[in-house]
Amino acid sequence: MVTHNAERGFHGDSHENATFAVEETRSSGTMMIENERYGNGEGGGDSDDKSLSVEMLFKGKVVPSWREQLTIRAFVVSFVLGVLLTFIVMKLNLTTGIIPSLNVSAGLLGFFFVKSWAKFMEKSGMLKQPFTRQENTVIQTCVVATSGIAFSGGFGSYLFGMSSIVAGQSAKSIDAQNTKDPRLPWIIGFLFAVSFLGLFSVLPLRKIMVIDYKLTYPSGTATAHLINSFHTPQGAKLAKQQVRTLGKFFSFSFLWGFFQWFFTGGDGCGFSNFPTFGLEAYENRFYFDFSGTFVGVGMICPYLINVSVLVGAILSWGLMWPLIKNRKGDWYSAMLSDSNLMGVQGYRVFLSIAMILGDGLYNFVKVLGLTIRGFIKQYKKMEVIPVTERGSPEKVSNSYDDEVRTKLFLKDGIPLWVSIVGYVAIAAVSIGVIPKIFHQMKWYYVLVIYIFAPVLAFCNAYGCGLTDWSLASTYGKLAIFAIGAWAGESHGGVLAGLAACGVMMNIVSTASDLMQDFKTGYMTLASPRSMFVSQVIGTAMGCIISPCVFWLFYKAFVDIGSPDSDYPAPNALVYRNMSVLGVEGFGSLPDHCLTLCYILFAGSIVINLIRDTVAKKWAKYIPLPMAMAIPFYLGPYFAIDMCVGSLILFIWGKLDKAKADAFGPAVASGLICGDGIWSLPSSILALAGVQPPICMKFLSRGTNARVDQFLSP
Amino acid sequence: MVTHNAERGFHGDSHENATFAVEETRSSGTMMIENERYGNGEGGGDSDDKSLSVEMLFKGKVVPSWREQLTIRAFVVSFVLGVLLTFIVMKLNLTTGIIPSLNVSAGLLGFFFVKSWAKFMEKSGMLKQPFTRQENTVIQTCVVATSGIAFSGGFGSYLFGMSSIVAGQSAKSIDAQNTKDPRLPWIIGFLFAVSFLGLFSVLPLRKIMVIDYKLTYPSGTATAHLINSFHTPQGAKLAKQQVRTLGKFFSFSFLWGFFQWFFTGGDGCGFSNFPTFGLEAYENRFYFDFSGTFVGVGMICPYLINVSVLVGAILSWGLMWPLIKNRKGDWYSAMLSDSNLMGVQGYRVFLSIAMILGDGLYNFVKVLGLTIRGFIKQYKKMEVIPVTERGSPEKVSNSYDDEVRTKLFLKDGIPLWVSIVGYVAIAAVSIGVIPKIFHQMKWYYVLVIYIFAPVLAFCNAYGCGLTDWSLASTYGKLAIFAIGAWAGESHGGVLAGLAACGVMMNIVSTASDLMQDFKTGYMTLASPRSMFVSQVIGTAMGCIISPCVFWLFYKAFVDIGSPDSDYPAPNALVYRNMSVLGVEGFGSLPDHCLTLCYILFAGSIVINLIRDTVAKKWAKYIPLPMAMAIPFYLGPYFAIDMCVGSLILFIWGKLDKAKADAFGPAVASGLICGDGIWSLPSSILALAGVQPPICMKFLSRGTNARVDQFLSP
Repeated sequence: MVTHNAERGFHGDSHENATFAVEETRSSGTMMIENERYGNGEGGGDSDDKSLSVEMLFKGKVVPSWREQLTIRAFVVSFVLGVLLTFIVMKLNLTTGIIPSLNVSAGLLGFFFVKSWAKFMEKSGMLKQPFTRQENTVIQTCVVATSGIAFSGGFGSYLFGMSSIVAGQSAKSIDAQNTKDPRLPWIIGFLFAVSFLGLFSVLPLRKIMVIDYKLTYPSGTATAHLINSFHTPQGAKLAKQQVRTLGKFFSFSFLWGFFQWFFTGGDGCGFSNFPTFGLEAYENRFYFDFSGTFVGVGMICPYLINVSVLVGAILSWGLMWPLIKNRKGDWYSAMLSDSNLMGVQGYRVFLSIAMILGDGLYNFVKVLGLTIRGFIKQYKKMEVIPVTERGSPEKVSNSYDDEVRTKLFLKDGIPLWVSIVGYVAIAAVSIGVIPKIFHQMKWYYVLVIYIFAPVLAFCNAYGCGLTDWSLASTYGKLAIFAIGAWAGESHGGVLAGLAACGVMMNIVSTASDLMQDFKTGYMTLASPRSMFVSQVIGTAMGCIISPCVFWLFYKAFVDIGSPDSDYPAPNALVYRNMSVLGVEGFGSLPDHCLTLCYILFAGSIVINLIRDTVAKKWAKYIPLPMAMAIPFYLGPYFAIDMCVGSLILFIWGKLDKAKADAFGPAVASGLICGDGIWSLPSSILALAGVQPPICMKFLSRGTNARVDQFLSP
Repeated sequence: MVTHNAERGFHGDSHENATFAVEETRSSGTMMIENERYGNGEGGGDSDDKSLSVEMLFKGKVVPSWREQLTIRAFVVSFVLGVLLTFIVMKLNLTTGIIPSLNVSAGLLGFFFVKSWAKFMEKSGMLKQPFTRQENTVIQTCVVATSGIAFSGGFGSYLFGMSSIVAGQSAKSIDAQNTKDPRLPWIIGFLFAVSFLGLFSVLPLRKIMVIDYKLTYPSGTATAHLINSFHTPQGAKLAKQQVRTLGKFFSFSFLWGFFQWFFTGGDGCGFSNFPTFGLEAYENRFYFDFSGTFVGVGMICPYLINVSVLVGAILSWGLMWPLIKNRKGDWYSAMLSDSNLMGVQGYRVFLSIAMILGDGLYNFVKVLGLTIRGFIKQYKKMEVIPVTERGSPEKVSNSYDDEVRTKLFLKDGIPLWVSIVGYVAIAAVSIGVIPKIFHQMKWYYVLVIYIFAPVLAFCNAYGCGLTDWSLASTYGKLAIFAIGAWAGESHGGVLAGLAACGVMMNIVSTASDLMQDFKTGYMTLASPRSMFVSQVIGTAMGCIISPCVFWLFYKAFVDIGSPDSDYPAPNALVYRNMSVLGVEGFGSLPDHCLTLCYILFAGSIVINLIRDTVAKKWAKYIPLPMAMAIPFYLGPYFAIDMCVGSLILFIWGKLDKAKADAFGPAVASGLICGDGIWSLPSSILALAGVQPPICMKFLSRGTNARVDQFLSP
């Protein structure tokens, strides 16, 4: 229920480079996967290579200053689109809780809005400033920030889970101590108090993530490709062909999504539940779900990521979970359903968290160490250029695109002290304000969260860069358990847990969103400053728009939140129950779960250590723990999609290397964007109450015979 | 239930040429679709053109004489394969009644058997004669003739419908007068008496059909491509590429068939029941059934055929049948199900027959007239070359392939008197023998059938050449009604009708099979004489093998033919009921059906007249009545498949004409053959009792909700 959620972006580069990027020597060439695909990898000097460079095509275009990128029309359009998308996300929050990524929709809609407006103004001679790709990126960033709050605000999960309506459906803790009904003022106050911290927490890491680590952020990369393709100057033949390819696959993916929709008239219906490998494999979530998005993601991700995800999927859903299920009745009560956190679902969630935390912490410590070493070295050389702000260009740029982009990305610096002061100031205010809103939430709980939050925000932004999955809700769950157990039931631990979840989710979610946008900005030559400002404005708009839209729903539909209504808000009850479970502490987890968590946490660190110590030629065959952990919880289906994407690109590369290199990213982006844009009309159809007419159902032969008999007159 | 049946072949050329082929002036070039696709159309002289010619590749190969083509090993292999395929067809006869085309399987299996044997013999130094493509064609022809009898022998339809077991399930006419239980001697005798007439009846028309009319016979053409590709000498680059393309699409189509199989665990399950255009369209059989076969057929057929089929489909299933259904309760009883011949099914069957008969008769008369005119002309010139045997080469050959093939096809003539004497002699014996087997069948009934049979055999062979559908069972039904009504119930009309059906079906079915094989022979340079001998031997083998295999089933499973058994033989009851209906005469047809038949019969002739009188540039936009009539009965789904094939080729041609021309037929043949071969393992799976595990079901949203409730514990 909490699986696919709003913060799915994308990604498009190599973790290979990533892990070794900050070290002294770097091999260029074979590992520069993104560059290679665009043919800019090796020498980058002759005309052939340059014709493949994106930035060569834009050479004549002047990049506006960061202030010029922030136009009033951009924010007007952002506001309109923000309201539109917030409505959609809110509706999905309250109905199914499954929210697709809307990044691409935002980029595309922003373009069409402003472009048509610019064209109209141009004709009437009133256009003062041309519409640039930087401005387009600003709009996209602002809209994503605005609609992101509709998800991370928890209107379908933790925040609504505090209400007495939802509490009444839970087994216990319905006392006044542990409930708080929604009211507009405190919701807005709470959101303002917590939503900006994430931005400041990862702000200083943008160079490391985007330039040094070369993290891909598939959604961000795809959006950037899309925006670049819209604004490509005329006359570039290859770019035109790429745009045409993108357009073709965009249409295909969109129409395919449309076609699929007709067959989803019920639970478990449609192509997204196709038991490609048989019903038994489907039970264990091994199937190909015909999702254009993940096939595209697989084409953009390096092979190692795809293989890691698949290895993790096989290890967990093929091996561990079936083995654990054999212990049913022994390790955990046989009465529990598969989705109960006290049962097998508990192993899924907590083992996944353990592995992600292990990888995240390892990389955080490593980066911290390298950063400090870099500082000291720079300091010794008496060159006071902080490594987090400016790197030496000859190290990082090995293609024309990279050169130009890195130069512009580093031009408008944001001093480190801004991040630190901003974070500390907002945290201080927040520590004062939050206990006022939730008296169960002591100030020292908030303080502890704010001490650990940057680590987790880094983990999430890093993981999202690798795999396109933002795991904000997973970190939120962690907070529920930690703070809930600390507070204890008698002191309003259930409510404290839910509030802590909100604080945590907002930080890690906005952190990964911001980094995603920095990647887009990097690739479209938008200034980090304008990105940051746009994100801040977008977040502020979201903090007001989202509660208002929620309030509208809350007042318009009286039975909202009750299981039989049109708006059951399923995740609200799930979060509530998790919090109820949490106040009993980690001891309430199923048997051996904590032991297994320790093993996987350590294993994750060991694998990383091995990757960093063995020879590079071996390291590239060792899977990444972060990528392995993601299917633990979600299931192998998207791993299979991604591997299909990998396989397509691999075969294409074997058949025609040049074409695959030039058009692979366009095909992938087209697939991702088409599927992404389809989510807009499909949400509108859902809002309008239009339901798909047909259910494509998969039954075993025996069940089918029973159904046929049931249906025969 | 009687829809897809054994005699599906294919086709690959233009009816455009066809209709004008016998006239004095013929335009070459643009209309020679098959040649064009192979790039041999226009000049045919320079090296580029020659590299695209199939026969150029075989230039060094000596074509063995027709006697050498008929080897003993060929018939040994044919016998083994014949028994194998007869088992499969018989099982399908007695279970579902749906029998796919096995031509391709026969060709491929024949190749592998003899090739491996030849290789083994070569190694041991005992190979006397190399394995040629002509020998391969002989095997394929013989096997198809053998297994064809398993279908046209009516073991699952008319013949078994005579038995008292089946009669007991019918409403009336279960008296001894109207039943005859199967016994081995009379079945073999009956089959020998009727199975050879079809061969002689269309034998003289082979030049008109294959060379003058250039009918395509898609199955025959595809089989020929397959056989040619197996035997292509080394070193020809394009041919190799074509073979590789064929292989690729062959594998794809085969694997796709295999994949589809898993989801067909029940009635109406799987991709072949995919309501692509919604459930309402599906009710009217408008859907894309994902059949590789018909997409391939659409790619081989000229656009006009595909469009004609679609026009016919829309006219009937989109317009006429819904309108007629509105008259339910008025024109026919509202109590009748859709599949009842007294209801809407009656309109479907008889209007289809009327239109086919109109077109067939028009063309028969036209060809007869032109043939006689040709005779007279030749006679006047004192050149006694019958036009049915030899044409003037400069008229017909306009490419190297055609030249070589036509020369060899015309080399081994079979004199006209052989056909006439053969037909008359066998007819005479038959007229004597059949009334002895069925005393209800008067000798004059048989005589009348034999007078009309050649016309119908021509119609069927001609229609099959155009569209790949053999409508033998439709003609059989016509005989049931005609003879049944004539005899009357009190004189054993039910049994007479069924026997007449057998006589008719055998003639028209073997006629189209033979012509299909002549097309294959034409394209593989096999002699018509060896084809004919092979067919005669194959038919004789079939007349013994099929009854024996049936006898085995009949004795092995005691409850064969009863509705609850594993072998319900559904078509047997259907045929029986039609015959019961038939004895009441055409008057028992639903209201206005006969009037509509007259209208369509006349319309069919008028359309043909218009096609022949208006300017050629307009004629090519006028649909063909024969092609239009086929979906009347079967439904539009295969028309949609074919149009998809057309569309693919059209778009491919727009993108890359040269490639589409060179590889289009290879892709199409691959699709057809892969799907065809899959029918062999799928039949074996069915024989072994292995049923598909999953049912992919399509339910409306409402029904799905009911089913979900039913299934929830």
